[in-house]
Amino acid sequence: MSLKEATVAVLGATGAVGEQILRNLEKRSFPVKELRLLASPRSVGKKIRFNGEEVSVQEAKPEAFEGVDIALFSAGGSVSESLAPEAVKRGAVVVDNTNAFRMNADVPLVVPEVNKDQIKQHKGIIANPNCSTIQMVVALKPLYDRFGFERVIVSTYQAVSGSGAKAIEELNNQSRAALDGQEIPKEIMPVGKLNKHYQIAFNTLPQCDVAQENGFTLEEMKMTRETKKIFGDDQIGVTATCVRVPVQRGHSESVYVELNRDFDLEEVRQALREAEGVVLEDDIQNQVYPTPLDATGRDEVFVGRVRKDVVHPRGLNFWVVSDNLLKGAATNAVQIAEYLVQK
Amino acid sequence: MSLKEATVAVLGATGAVGEQILRNLEKRSFPVKELRLLASPRSVGKKIRFNGEEVSVQEAKPEAFEGVDIALFSAGGSVSESLAPEAVKRGAVVVDNTNAFRMNADVPLVVPEVNKDQIKQHKGIIANPNCSTIQMVVALKPLYDRFGFERVIVSTYQAVSGSGAKAIEELNNQSRAALDGQEIPKEIMPVGKLNKHYQIAFNTLPQCDVAQENGFTLEEMKMTRETKKIFGDDQIGVTATCVRVPVQRGHSESVYVELNRDFDLEEVRQALREAEGVVLEDDIQNQVYPTPLDATGRDEVFVGRVRKDVVHPRGLNFWVVSDNLLKGAATNAVQIAEYLVQK
Repeated sequence: MSLKEATVAVLGATGAVGEQILRNLEKRSFPVKELRLLASPRSVGKKIRFNGEEVSVQEAKPEAFEGVDIALFSAGGSVSESLAPEAVKRGAVVVDNTNAFRMNADVPLVVPEVNKDQIKQHKGIIANPNCSTIQMVVALKPLYDRFGFERVIVSTYQAVSGSGAKAIEELNNQSRAALDGQEIPKEIMPVGKLNKHYQIAFNTLPQCDVAQENGFTLEEMKMTRETKKIFGDDQIGVTATCVRVPVQRGHSESVYVELNRDFDLEEVRQALREAEGVVLEDDIQNQVYPTPLDATGRDEVFVGRVRKDVVHPRGLNFWVVSDNLLKGAATNAVQIAEYLVQK
Repeated sequence: MSLKEATVAVLGATGAVGEQILRNLEKRSFPVKELRLLASPRSVGKKIRFNGEEVSVQEAKPEAFEGVDIALFSAGGSVSESLAPEAVKRGAVVVDNTNAFRMNADVPLVVPEVNKDQIKQHKGIIANPNCSTIQMVVALKPLYDRFGFERVIVSTYQAVSGSGAKAIEELNNQSRAALDGQEIPKEIMPVGKLNKHYQIAFNTLPQCDVAQENGFTLEEMKMTRETKKIFGDDQIGVTATCVRVPVQRGHSESVYVELNRDFDLEEVRQALREAEGVVLEDDIQNQVYPTPLDATGRDEVFVGRVRKDVVHPRGLNFWVVSDNLLKGAATNAVQIAEYLVQK
């Protein structure tokens, strides 16, 4: 594909990520010839503003993809599984934001700052990685290129918006109820589709997705598997602990990485400063470091607390924050779409 | 000292930890002959209930320690520095909850579950470790005894009450203001005595104490240094990232430890189950794991998410939660005091 402008379908247009995709297409002046907003039947007819015009939401069904060049999917894994092949059959390239195809051998898993060369290998579907993986690999990329590494240990501090707009509402309602001494409504966190729900307001929950057989959660194993695939390097070992915290938007991560060679801290900082998509905010002596609140609404990945480990001579510690709805989802998807039209 | 009952002074009696010390002395039926509540001049005359009686707060000055057997200090480092020697001079044994003496060679740093034998080595002062260290070493102790280890990497999720009752008030006020779209009052977090303050409500802050020259914070270096001293093992290397989260009470920690020998996960669980002071809540398949909200008001250390690392063959990951005002401070101090009277 090398279009000047494209007919774009946004599937899941009424969701938290869908909304950010639309704002990103506008903000980045994406060359949209025609825009199709697709969602489940209950949202059909709803109007959403795009570039100053009202666009009506249509039903997400196979025929809706006729004539579509690029389809941005963020309506959940099962919807992707059924509709992505239909869109591809009709000539669209699907950029899928769900977990449905990420580990498929013939689906590129792309973070443009790391492996944009993979985009052109697609066979109709390109997968957007998990939010917590994206921000980590963007920060790791300059270290991989300049120093190399095999071992990463990460603990996450994840915002509730990873579970959608309703999860933000739940956090807000629970917070208010807790402050007022009222009963706490618990319906979504930590995992909507599971039976047991915990209070997330003023609490931390060490579970961001369903459990796997090995005792890790799916969210944790996504970080392990996706990082290998994005770097195209099976030697990279990622140990993740994924934790939900009472934050509306913006994931934070405490990352430990063992570099392959000795390093000077200033060399690390320089590599991060020059890296595509990274903003270095690193001066603990003056209390400068990124926080999710400051990262909200911004497209970059923010890195701070960069320090040489006190134990391992080649150990490096840092803190990485990004807006999970933007670089962690919508921005990354729109960036991939940009490569499809321009390159 | 081997008293049947003791004259006890509580310094910082009106603070968040002081209050919990009093509740703990009551709950554990500590053999109190006489209780002296000490605080700064502005609290003098205030009455606090203890074992059904009203006790008046007196001014914390050297003479107040005449006749005191055990003095429990939690009024800040500088108060400890000036008054602990005065209390000791008058025959009291000081259990100090501040950072003032922890690393002094002739001051035992004690977590009874790990090194209660150190208590009798005291020369008048016994130090209570930092809250984030205490809960980690209680969980690590059975692993140290059964498997041995040298390497620990920990990321913390710390409640604001570590910074006192005013910090809880700040979190609550900020949360309400944020929910109402009002201006956010920022006066304490992340470190009261520093100039720059960040919003903690719906945010995470990767700073829990002042910066050190090596780029780590004092809180992080406390975990590194105190763990070596408590285990009496300089080979133990702890890498810590300490993060404040919007939780009122209860610290959580994501811990990675490399054991010295191969292990079976059930053997690890058994060791934790049998360990003094530890409650194992570990069944991710049924969404069972500890959270700070559930740990609030309880004296034990709660461990969950126990799993064999996916990268290092001897790596072990777990999640440990405890009430920072109880086992992280008051409970540990009162436990030490119990050994002073009974043993």
